[in-house]
Amino acid sequence: MNEFELIQAYFSTLASKGVGKGVELGIGDDCAILTPPANSQLVVSTDTLIAGVHFPDSTSAFDIGFKSLAVNLSDLAAMGASPLWFTLCITLPDRNTQWVEGFCNGMAELIQQTGIQLVGGDTTKGPLSISIHVTGAVPVGEALTRHGACVGDDVYVSGVIGHGAAGLEMVLSDFEAPDGSRFDEYLLDALQRFNRPQPRLALGQALRGIATSCIDISDGLLADLQHVLSASEVGARLVLESVPLSDAVMAGCLFGDKSERENRLLACNAGDDYELCFTAPENKRESVDALAAEQIVTLTRIGSVVEGASIVEKGGEELVGLGYQHF
Amino acid sequence: MNEFELIQAYFSTLASKGVGKGVELGIGDDCAILTPPANSQLVVSTDTLIAGVHFPDSTSAFDIGFKSLAVNLSDLAAMGASPLWFTLCITLPDRNTQWVEGFCNGMAELIQQTGIQLVGGDTTKGPLSISIHVTGAVPVGEALTRHGACVGDDVYVSGVIGHGAAGLEMVLSDFEAPDGSRFDEYLLDALQRFNRPQPRLALGQALRGIATSCIDISDGLLADLQHVLSASEVGARLVLESVPLSDAVMAGCLFGDKSERENRLLACNAGDDYELCFTAPENKRESVDALAAEQIVTLTRIGSVVEGASIVEKGGEELVGLGYQHF
Repeated sequence: MNEFELIQAYFSTLASKGVGKGVELGIGDDCAILTPPANSQLVVSTDTLIAGVHFPDSTSAFDIGFKSLAVNLSDLAAMGASPLWFTLCITLPDRNTQWVEGFCNGMAELIQQTGIQLVGGDTTKGPLSISIHVTGAVPVGEALTRHGACVGDDVYVSGVIGHGAAGLEMVLSDFEAPDGSRFDEYLLDALQRFNRPQPRLALGQALRGIATSCIDISDGLLADLQHVLSASEVGARLVLESVPLSDAVMAGCLFGDKSERENRLLACNAGDDYELCFTAPENKRESVDALAAEQIVTLTRIGSVVEGASIVEKGGEELVGLGYQHF
Repeated sequence: MNEFELIQAYFSTLASKGVGKGVELGIGDDCAILTPPANSQLVVSTDTLIAGVHFPDSTSAFDIGFKSLAVNLSDLAAMGASPLWFTLCITLPDRNTQWVEGFCNGMAELIQQTGIQLVGGDTTKGPLSISIHVTGAVPVGEALTRHGACVGDDVYVSGVIGHGAAGLEMVLSDFEAPDGSRFDEYLLDALQRFNRPQPRLALGQALRGIATSCIDISDGLLADLQHVLSASEVGARLVLESVPLSDAVMAGCLFGDKSERENRLLACNAGDDYELCFTAPENKRESVDALAAEQIVTLTRIGSVVEGASIVEKGGEELVGLGYQHF
């Protein structure tokens, strides 16, 4: 089976059916031909995932397929956009069709959930890596950005923080609880969320007109909030104890003999949560609460925007976001 | 220097200045925000280049930067599109800033030539690989595709064929002519064109309304023409001797002791030429000739579209395009 047949057999099953997304010509030509939606702006983002860096080598093909699309969709969510199209560049070490089938199944699940259309790609040979480019649409002028946070705004985070840290720790510790016991359900839940993060698309879209700034948490809550603050030229005062943590982090057993505060800081400095961190004016508190109830998602106020450039705690102590350093 | 500083220092120099291409927000947020041009469709394509596969390991950083954007722009050319935006995913083995600077300089040259805007990207660590996603615009309904070739159409190729084959052979033979002599100028010209292919953007755009189908030659003339024929459900009769070959191939010295026909077949089966192969009705011959004169580009009629499914020579012998097989 050669490259073209491999693409034909598997990736074609993922390809756009062109349903209602302006896809005039999908996979199979030099380019796809796409009609952009009326009265909209496009938002685009691209992310590469490398085996052993962005996911552990032991990750299943299904989870790699799911996660590589999910982290890109999360960027669309952070802009308040609706997903339109994506392209997939995949570098494969060999023609392991069983692996490709699993990968496609994982990706297909998220395609079905979100309606995003695969419109192009490239398959090459080499060490496993996946680069995805996503395009979404927002009504003209309504995209959420990092640069709109104002002094006095509340700072919110969706869901809970720490699935990324706990899930990674579980994989690195080889699925073995420190006391040798079977994992509790909440630990398996953390692992599931680490491998199959759910992009907060509906939340992001609903935050248009409410949030003044928004970012998805991929590098760690503190590092990503710092990106917002730098872009908006403001600071933030956080109540670290108010950051909602995943049960796995609260249990603390995955991080050895650390204090709750240390666990909390680890979780806030770990990546791969894909929750949204956003700011909104005080007078939007009711809207935020209503949205949380409507979407059955926890939206927690964890601090407020202040003058300055950094993240401080109540007493004024600085909290530094480390983020992930590639080099 | 960490990842963000590296991006800041070098890749930011390439970033969109937003001049006249609808770039509302470029690099630096979760997504770029883009306003698509009115009355246009978008065409998108993506290609990955891997060191040692798509370019020899010895290729200079400048040439890698130039070529990786050029091969993507060539896909836009094949659709008759004008370049708008691109994103760049680059995986680097280390933070060799001198290499990154060279790479950016090569890419900058083509950005300046074509006006395409860099609007996003991702920098990761690993074996060198580059994935680029390009977006272009065409007036609604005017994109060139692979599926419009009709029986009776002429088959054309732009420029000359074989720079790709000759350039690669030169690199693989370690820049050493078989007789030990210094290379002639035409061989250095082939190498230059192999490393810095010029995407046929102006030609592609001018072919709208003239060509019935079009493709860029990346996998080899015969393989790429076969893609057009398959998509159009037709065959082609070629006059192999009429295919214009590069001086380097005509000299034959790079391919050892082969006949002219063997050299010709090698060149037609080798990739990396990035010329356009297109079909046009007989009654457009004057338009094609006028276009060739206007753009000072050789456009050679190499055969015609016939009923069938494959490429045959005058006598009916089948010509099989091998293309490049990744697996």
